[in-house]
Amino acid sequence: MFAVTILGNNSALPTLDRHPTAQVITCNDQLMLVDCGEGTQLQMARYKVRRSRIQRIFISHLHGDHYFGLIGFINTISLLGRTEPLFLYGPPALQAILQIQMDVANTTLNFELHFTPLTPEGAGILFREKDLEVSYFPTDHRIPCYGFRFDFVKHKRRINAEQARLYEVPSAYYSKLSEGLDYTRKDGTVVQNDWVTTAPPKGKSYVFCADTRYNEELLLPHISGADLVYHEATYLHDMETRAWERYHSTAFQAATLAAHGKVGRLLLGHFSSKYAEVEVFLTESRPVFPQTDIAREGVTYLV
Amino acid sequence: MFAVTILGNNSALPTLDRHPTAQVITCNDQLMLVDCGEGTQLQMARYKVRRSRIQRIFISHLHGDHYFGLIGFINTISLLGRTEPLFLYGPPALQAILQIQMDVANTTLNFELHFTPLTPEGAGILFREKDLEVSYFPTDHRIPCYGFRFDFVKHKRRINAEQARLYEVPSAYYSKLSEGLDYTRKDGTVVQNDWVTTAPPKGKSYVFCADTRYNEELLLPHISGADLVYHEATYLHDMETRAWERYHSTAFQAATLAAHGKVGRLLLGHFSSKYAEVEVFLTESRPVFPQTDIAREGVTYLV
Repeated sequence: MFAVTILGNNSALPTLDRHPTAQVITCNDQLMLVDCGEGTQLQMARYKVRRSRIQRIFISHLHGDHYFGLIGFINTISLLGRTEPLFLYGPPALQAILQIQMDVANTTLNFELHFTPLTPEGAGILFREKDLEVSYFPTDHRIPCYGFRFDFVKHKRRINAEQARLYEVPSAYYSKLSEGLDYTRKDGTVVQNDWVTTAPPKGKSYVFCADTRYNEELLLPHISGADLVYHEATYLHDMETRAWERYHSTAFQAATLAAHGKVGRLLLGHFSSKYAEVEVFLTESRPVFPQTDIAREGVTYLV
Repeated sequence: MFAVTILGNNSALPTLDRHPTAQVITCNDQLMLVDCGEGTQLQMARYKVRRSRIQRIFISHLHGDHYFGLIGFINTISLLGRTEPLFLYGPPALQAILQIQMDVANTTLNFELHFTPLTPEGAGILFREKDLEVSYFPTDHRIPCYGFRFDFVKHKRRINAEQARLYEVPSAYYSKLSEGLDYTRKDGTVVQNDWVTTAPPKGKSYVFCADTRYNEELLLPHISGADLVYHEATYLHDMETRAWERYHSTAFQAATLAAHGKVGRLLLGHFSSKYAEVEVFLTESRPVFPQTDIAREGVTYLV
């Protein structure tokens, strides 16, 4: 299971049915949160996301619609008795912002909060764990802002059982074969791994492009070939100038980037509150990139 | 019009139908906000409170369920184009918490934000304006916490029209009479104000007691005789010990205080999420103080 659940698809001004940015990434048994606008903890309750299961949180940047719900979420899971550590990734100042609010409230968390600061220089791989690799990259925004790429990689090589039998590798050794090890027979001869296995199946990738201007140079290397990409579309293209001035993108631009990046599917979000209906974003995007969907709140998209 | 509209009646752990503390006080044409838990701006949208009309905000203390929605609210009204100044009252650290979040986002507000720090030494009258007087007082909580008293005072004396005619005061002078001035006739004789007027009608008072332990010494002087009092009832009385340990009150205690303070009516709120239904708080409170109501979200209570 590799999927993304949308909790908020609106830009800074929340409306009653569209909330600020927050997404839950499910990767096998791991739940991760990307951005955490105000009210995210209630959106989790509404859509039955178990708050206690979130293990990592990624904050793209420090505009409020992307993190004002974080301190409340952290307080809540502590009150609910969490003891497992929580891993948090975000711009450096985020740590001080959380700390001052915990200090004045005389709050002691019941769990360890591990904070990793994100910086332009540090961009690249954030961590690898089992089949998951997460990396980050700067986007083109008014303040430092980062996108996140989730690569769900299959590391285990596929065993060609017929060949393995032919080379007399005992089946008890198959798990080692899948890890890429050679097999040495009792007579000392070596069965090389690639005689009896093939490369792992292709992994899957999800890329969250955060808030950004249209910028192929910056973004294309990170989205290329991804199975699913979330890209903001704050405006329609008749407001291209405003989008540029405010460091945001249009639906047309998001679609263009997705087409050039040859991605599998595109999700649009971060809509300006000026648009009462969001179908218009599809109307603009699909002629350029047909595999576009609206990032709908409460909906889970398989990667 | 002097009324309080409840936006949130729950304690720290929000649920889908009970939100953290926030109340709107309407005093003639002035709207004021007391506390601002996460999601308050959406509660305002839900209950048609015009965000732009809030002129003053009072924050009782710096536990998150009383102010985590403030920074989002301030951002939103700025984005909506507010230019009128906003007056904010709260514990001193609140200013730094807001400032750091505006700094990292490179936010410039479109309006002036006037901050008044609340301190135990400074307790007393916060301001007087027209018919309204607002004061604050410390409560008994784990961190510095303040209650607020709103006195809607009628300053204008009532004119005894029959007497005024008898003393030949022209009706054009009645507005001056209502302000307490004497009238000097053309022949030089003086008509003393209290010959032709009577004292203004009694004012109305609303007291918000914030989060607190049961503490008559601290609270009774401030609630005595008030028309409407909001007092927290986080627990029922079988959890009196826990209430004490956590610096909260029970419904029985709130009712006892209201009875001893001879207040007009009592509103209970700040319910622990452990109670799925809140009617039980009335069951406990009304035998001690019959004029108890639940502070229901979305409901406006006239003072």
